[in-house]
Amino acid sequence: MNTQSLRSTAAQANVDLLVRFQAVRAQTLALIEGLSDEDCVVQAMPDASPLKWHLAHTTWFFEVFVVEKFSTNFRPFDASFKVLFNSYYNGVGEKFPRSHRGFLTRPSLATVRQYRAVIDDQIAVLLSAKSGFDTSELEALVVLGINHEQQHQELMLADFKYLMSLHPLLPAYRAGWPLITTVLPQQRFLAFGSGLISIGYSGKNVKRYAEFSFDNEGPEHQVYLRAFELSNRPITYGDVLDFIDAGGYQQPEFWLAMGWDIVRLHGLNAPLYWQSHPSGGAPGWFNFTLRGLCPISLDVPVPHLSYFEADALARFSGARLPTESEWEHAALASKDQGKLIEQGNFLEDNLFHPTVARTAGANQSPSQLFGDVWEWTQSSYQAYPGYRSEDGAIGEYNGKFMCSQYVLRGGSCVTPRDHIRSSYRNFFPPAAQWQFSGARLARDLP
Amino acid sequence: MNTQSLRSTAAQANVDLLVRFQAVRAQTLALIEGLSDEDCVVQAMPDASPLKWHLAHTTWFFEVFVVEKFSTNFRPFDASFKVLFNSYYNGVGEKFPRSHRGFLTRPSLATVRQYRAVIDDQIAVLLSAKSGFDTSELEALVVLGINHEQQHQELMLADFKYLMSLHPLLPAYRAGWPLITTVLPQQRFLAFGSGLISIGYSGKNVKRYAEFSFDNEGPEHQVYLRAFELSNRPITYGDVLDFIDAGGYQQPEFWLAMGWDIVRLHGLNAPLYWQSHPSGGAPGWFNFTLRGLCPISLDVPVPHLSYFEADALARFSGARLPTESEWEHAALASKDQGKLIEQGNFLEDNLFHPTVARTAGANQSPSQLFGDVWEWTQSSYQAYPGYRSEDGAIGEYNGKFMCSQYVLRGGSCVTPRDHIRSSYRNFFPPAAQWQFSGARLARDLP
Amino acid sequence: MNTQSLRSTAAQANVDLLVRFQAVRAQTLALIEGLSDEDCVVQAMPDASPLKWHLAHTTWFFEVFVVEKFSTNFRPFDASFKVLFNSYYNGVGEKFPRSHRGFLTRPSLATVRQYRAVIDDQIAVLLSAKSGFDTSELEALVVLGINHEQQHQELMLADFKYLMSLHPLLPAYRAGWPLITTVLPQQRFLAFGSGLISIGYSGKNVKRYAEFSFDNEGPEHQVYLRAFELSNRPITYGDVLDFIDAGGYQQPEFWLAMGWDIVRLHGLNAPLYWQSHPSGGAPGWFNFTLRGLCPISLDVPVPHLSYFEADALARFSGARLPTESEWEHAALASKDQGKLIEQGNFLEDNLFHPTVARTAGANQSPSQLFGDVWEWTQSSYQAYPGYRSEDGAIGEYNGKFMCSQYVLRGGSCVTPRDHIRSSYRNFFPPAAQWQFSGARLARDLP
Amino acid sequence: MNTQSLRSTAAQANVDLLVRFQAVRAQTLALIEGLSDEDCVVQAMPDASPLKWHLAHTTWFFEVFVVEKFSTNFRPFDASFKVLFNSYYNGVGEKFPRSHRGFLTRPSLATVRQYRAVIDDQIAVLLSAKSGFDTSELEALVVLGINHEQQHQELMLADFKYLMSLHPLLPAYRAGWPLITTVLPQQRFLAFGSGLISIGYSGKNVKRYAEFSFDNEGPEHQVYLRAFELSNRPITYGDVLDFIDAGGYQQPEFWLAMGWDIVRLHGLNAPLYWQSHPSGGAPGWFNFTLRGLCPISLDVPVPHLSYFEADALARFSGARLPTESEWEHAALASKDQGKLIEQGNFLEDNLFHPTVARTAGANQSPSQLFGDVWEWTQSSYQAYPGYRSEDGAIGEYNGKFMCSQYVLRGGSCVTPRDHIRSSYRNFFPPAAQWQFSGARLARDLP
Repeated sequence: MNTQSLRSTAAQANVDLLVRFQAVRAQTLALIEGLSDEDCVVQAMPDASPLKWHLAHTTWFFEVFVVEKFSTNFRPFDASFKVLFNSYYNGVGEKFPRSHRGFLTRPSLATVRQYRAVIDDQIAVLLSAKSGFDTSELEALVVLGINHEQQHQELMLADFKYLMSLHPLLPAYRAGWPLITTVLPQQRFLAFGSGLISIGYSGKNVKRYAEFSFDNEGPEHQVYLRAFELSNRPITYGDVLDFIDAGGYQQPEFWLAMGWDIVRLHGLNAPLYWQSHPSGGAPGWFNFTLRGLCPISLDVPVPHLSYFEADALARFSGARLPTESEWEHAALASKDQGKLIEQGNFLEDNLFHPTVARTAGANQSPSQLFGDVWEWTQSSYQAYPGYRSEDGAIGEYNGKFMCSQYVLRGGSCVTPRDHIRSSYRNFFPPAAQWQFSGARLARDLP
Repeated sequence: MNTQSLRSTAAQANVDLLVRFQAVRAQTLALIEGLSDEDCVVQAMPDASPLKWHLAHTTWFFEVFVVEKFSTNFRPFDASFKVLFNSYYNGVGEKFPRSHRGFLTRPSLATVRQYRAVIDDQIAVLLSAKSGFDTSELEALVVLGINHEQQHQELMLADFKYLMSLHPLLPAYRAGWPLITTVLPQQRFLAFGSGLISIGYSGKNVKRYAEFSFDNEGPEHQVYLRAFELSNRPITYGDVLDFIDAGGYQQPEFWLAMGWDIVRLHGLNAPLYWQSHPSGGAPGWFNFTLRGLCPISLDVPVPHLSYFEADALARFSGARLPTESEWEHAALASKDQGKLIEQGNFLEDNLFHPTVARTAGANQSPSQLFGDVWEWTQSSYQAYPGYRSEDGAIGEYNGKFMCSQYVLRGGSCVTPRDHIRSSYRNFFPPAAQWQFSGARLARDLP
Repeated sequence: MNTQSLRSTAAQANVDLLVRFQAVRAQTLALIEGLSDEDCVVQAMPDASPLKWHLAHTTWFFEVFVVEKFSTNFRPFDASFKVLFNSYYNGVGEKFPRSHRGFLTRPSLATVRQYRAVIDDQIAVLLSAKSGFDTSELEALVVLGINHEQQHQELMLADFKYLMSLHPLLPAYRAGWPLITTVLPQQRFLAFGSGLISIGYSGKNVKRYAEFSFDNEGPEHQVYLRAFELSNRPITYGDVLDFIDAGGYQQPEFWLAMGWDIVRLHGLNAPLYWQSHPSGGAPGWFNFTLRGLCPISLDVPVPHLSYFEADALARFSGARLPTESEWEHAALASKDQGKLIEQGNFLEDNLFHPTVARTAGANQSPSQLFGDVWEWTQSSYQAYPGYRSEDGAIGEYNGKFMCSQYVLRGGSCVTPRDHIRSSYRNFFPPAAQWQFSGARLARDLP
Repeated sequence: MNTQSLRSTAAQANVDLLVRFQAVRAQTLALIEGLSDEDCVVQAMPDASPLKWHLAHTTWFFEVFVVEKFSTNFRPFDASFKVLFNSYYNGVGEKFPRSHRGFLTRPSLATVRQYRAVIDDQIAVLLSAKSGFDTSELEALVVLGINHEQQHQELMLADFKYLMSLHPLLPAYRAGWPLITTVLPQQRFLAFGSGLISIGYSGKNVKRYAEFSFDNEGPEHQVYLRAFELSNRPITYGDVLDFIDAGGYQQPEFWLAMGWDIVRLHGLNAPLYWQSHPSGGAPGWFNFTLRGLCPISLDVPVPHLSYFEADALARFSGARLPTESEWEHAALASKDQGKLIEQGNFLEDNLFHPTVARTAGANQSPSQLFGDVWEWTQSSYQAYPGYRSEDGAIGEYNGKFMCSQYVLRGGSCVTPRDHIRSSYRNFFPPAAQWQFSGARLARDLP
């Protein structure tokens, strides 16, 4: 290929990237459709951020890491935003405390929308530029920014759900209830043999976009697995109900010591968002969803489990949580690999709640590995062998959280479909419940 | 007077009351002019409420205690508001936790404005009605509601100031700075002799409106005072600076034990809102005001002292805080009584910050007894001898707070001028700083 | 009287004082008879001190304020004790944090006993000395030290009771149960007229020792009282049971707001040390005492009420707590004044728990004003008019605690009989329960 | 071998076991020699237990899990001890809260010594018995009890050190200072190749006693390792000083996010027990040891690092912490395997503080792998593949703590020498500092 055609190809790639950039940016705005300025400014707890902050921070990421770097004559949209909308990048100046994000009544939501539009234009200009700099670095950073924004799309919904759950009237984020009437597959366990396998990002992963992975997904490396089996489906509301009815929240033998302390301290008797008697309603278990309060549906994968609850449910079932290696191996071994992500229930499906699997899964494939609920693994979030974080502020992205967190896999009903991969490692502290976190059972084989 | 003319007089009184009602209600709305919906929804700390909540709660008071009681065919504006906008009246159903007021993104500010307008109309109808019920009770409750709303006007400004102080950019509530260049009177102490005096609400108080007092201001009762003297002016910024420069925040001998514990726990070295070096600015002491950050002005009465700071400043000066009886006696004994309130700096003056006394005070009258800053007294907030709280929910207004709080007198630059009286007892916990609370020195006489 | 005889009189006074000093010191040691070194070293909570610390601190007081001042060639028993056993006198060097007193496993109890003996000898030498210095100041400080030690005798028992209550086996401090079978007088209210009365230490108080008062008891001053009436007896266990059975711990209308918050936060349903079902025992209410766990006795004055509980019980009974002026006036007005203290149940009676009044009280005298239980008054602990604290470290004794505490009067079953006076002002924060604090009802008269 | 000789062999084994049992029990008592009853009863923090409690709890273990099971006509020494001295075995009745252990002034230390003697006799009787039951189960439980007691020996010293560090006079546990003057080996990194290796308890471990391992050490399993290198020596005081001098405690880039939060919250600037200026002494860094306060010695392995500090020190050195598989592999690969434990500095050496390696280490062997300081690994404490915890209360020993803790390897100067193995997994939360926890650097090889 000659230079000219190389340049054309690069230019076309940038056009494609611009289209994707704009689609993701539009998706973010679509998530706040119908919400008021007031809905977008309030912070529900230190771990959850206001929607407006998410809108601004994702834009800040593009401004600071892309526009500031590649634009000639860069002038910030507003110099104060560098502090106000930084999240945790110690390398980018003094950060504003996380728990204070809800005090930012100014700038207004209207100004933040304008900020988004201006930065969008600047990115478009950069991506359309003939050259003048190394476009591969530009592209890499834009792709990183896109993935970063997709992460925040998911957080926006989890955070807003938490906020609405604190309102005495339990308002619905989206009205109506899209009934999906399918039959849950009977629980079966699928067997996997022992051996040395390979996991981590490699280009051979189950995915839709090939070009990107976070640094924590690599390097690809070998792991020796014992023989094990994995459930064909996630833990459901019905499974939790069995646990509750068997007194599971009252019996320490099912719980990790730290989990049991939390159960007793807060007097827990069900997962987050469950309530046994809605005021003035019928008896039975209800749960708060992004579509309002509704009765639990037994066959649906259950979200909002803590690691402790997931582990206790597994112990109660005579099983255990899978390791992340086992989970990833099962995904790579699936014959239906190409359809696993397509069939999942993701953000773009606009359900914002798990559902029963829409296809029952082939005989030997686990259903709903991707989408619906993130699946807690028993694996602590650690560096892979040979891992090195990137230099500079970008390097703060993942490595410094590698302590006392646990890995979740597969994405959820509020994850963008394009965002997930089989090598994708999400992570949260074991007590976290406000994410769409479920689990799937595993067992040792002799 | 015949029955006809009695009715006319009552009708005229109601017309006057309606005019006053409408003026106070309009004043409340004027306070949020220029603020956004976002500014009005956020809660800065558990003790401070969102502006929208104040707007709704003061309206709730009129709806629940007046409209619901006197309207035939009462229908609530929105049934859920009875819980959402209750403050602490245990007698009026389940209350919504104080620290959760900031989660009420719904109803919107627009709906709350509409709520205000609807209840205003209903009150207007009731006050304009020919009769049908005991108008004296109606009037009493409307007057109570007006006074209640005036209290919240003051809280709105204190609460909003606190919120803005948490914003990294320290936004001003009102722009510009109305310079007032007067000379602070030299500090002198005015003497008062011993004897049995009378304090408490009696109809003989220094006031502008005669018809009303809170239950905690009575009954009128006798108190024996020793001879004492009182400073002619409040404690100023300059006085605080002397204390700081003398190491007052480092020396336990000036402090009550509980205050000293707070000083050490938080490492305090100046009152709330003071900062020694604004970023990028000149050295020296600055303080945050409702007009933004500005250098301190030595001759101005200092607001935002805790009881502990006021007490320590007095001890440092070889003086003490006055009792509330002494303060009230001094107000009643003043020759300028008629002008004391007129000359004060109050909410209606739109300064929202203390100033040097605009008139220097006659020879024997303390200046600025009313307005500018509330003055901490050394008196614990207790029931007066013979006090009985009213029955029912209205009775929860004052009595149940009579523990571990201290009395402040005289009103401040964010108090409505019509709201204050010489018998008026404000009260806050001794550590509270976010109100416009200052102090005045007293000394024993032999 | 000539100089010689003056000196003789002074010498005789010193002999008497030495006898009294030694008796009080011996009483302190008697309180730990039968306890182990281990019992004496442990700290149960930050507000309670280990017994060993009390033994050492009271000795420290004599060493630092008396021996160090008056001994020629003073050498400290152990230089480190000056810090280790200081309590809160900021003027005497760096203090050791209160909550760390339980970490002082060294010096041993044996060493502390030796410390006591050495300082006792030094005091004896000083009091026996012919002269050489102003003996009146020496005597005044020894008397202060005696009174200080008596205060700690009471604290020792309250603190140790709290420690034993945390032991799963609820050990008794003293074995056996001295039954006293008397009849509780029927509740009557005794009337007192209005007028200007005098309170505060004056030499005319109800007392056994005339020569001493704490600075906070003066100066004597005039107070105007409205007409009131006072119950002839303290609140009893039976009164509390009525309150419990009427749902008093579930109804906010009886409680001060701050008290209600505590009730809900801790889920209180009875006073401290009450339990409804001892393990393996009969149903009914029991309470832990210094003689072990035993069933409640309805006619006995109830100890360990918080101010909030005392106030709620009064409100429930259609009454109120008396002011400290009312209480003191009632004591001074009693015809039986001479017997009031003699008949009370005090430390020297070795019961360590309240009992029914042993004499029923004359017709017009309140029974058990002194001894059995301290009585909460509604009065905040404030300086009397004209009060000035003493200079230097001794002056830290009382004044700096004059905030957010409430006055109790009359002494209890763990107060030394010689220690109490009608003008005596004890004080604790309103939530404190671990002292022997009860209450007596008062009512307004028209 | 015939039955008779089998029985003889078993009997001899029991005799040997009895000797070992008695030696370990005696070692425990030797640790409190010279301490007072008071020293043994106090609890310094919730995580640390009183010495008396350790003495009683280790005895409780033998009484409940051995004597109660195998004795005919079992009668408890004291029925209440079953609750008082349980630690966390939910399966053995209601446990007494951990943070309340310091309130157990009764039973006395003398009674606990008697308790130990009585149970020792009962164990001796059981081990000397001809037969009557399955001796292998008896032996297994006694061996478990011995290992359990050895764990508590280490905890006793760590807990007591913490208590002494809170005493203002910083008393020494053992007097004098055993100087050891050796030369620290120059830091070198020893290389290890990649491959599938085997770790976990297997009978082939580096050890002194073959018969026992905790359940968490198995099963033996295969792990794939990348090539890596390991430092020949642990991190020293000198390494920490370099880190401090380079501003390591002020720079977030060296720290895990959770560690940095702790650094800022507590204002840390050095490890636990370090102080820069002892009162009245020379400048420079000192640290508190079980032999009192002394200047730091640069060449000595540093104890009392948190996981966060160990990780930050590694990052600062361009290295990382080893995984537990790497550590165990290095121990197994050592040519000096037989001497590694012998040469270590352990409890029996009575130094109670790390020292410079007494033998410099052969060319290719890491020195001080065993003894001196526990070495943090980067491995989260998780179940090995195929792990199953034992049934019943004994099964609560390890499994339920497998969350948010990190593995340490190799034992320390307060670990009994017989207690350690190459497969031994100790674990603590990452913020824990009061154990003798150090670290060793590792690096990736290409």
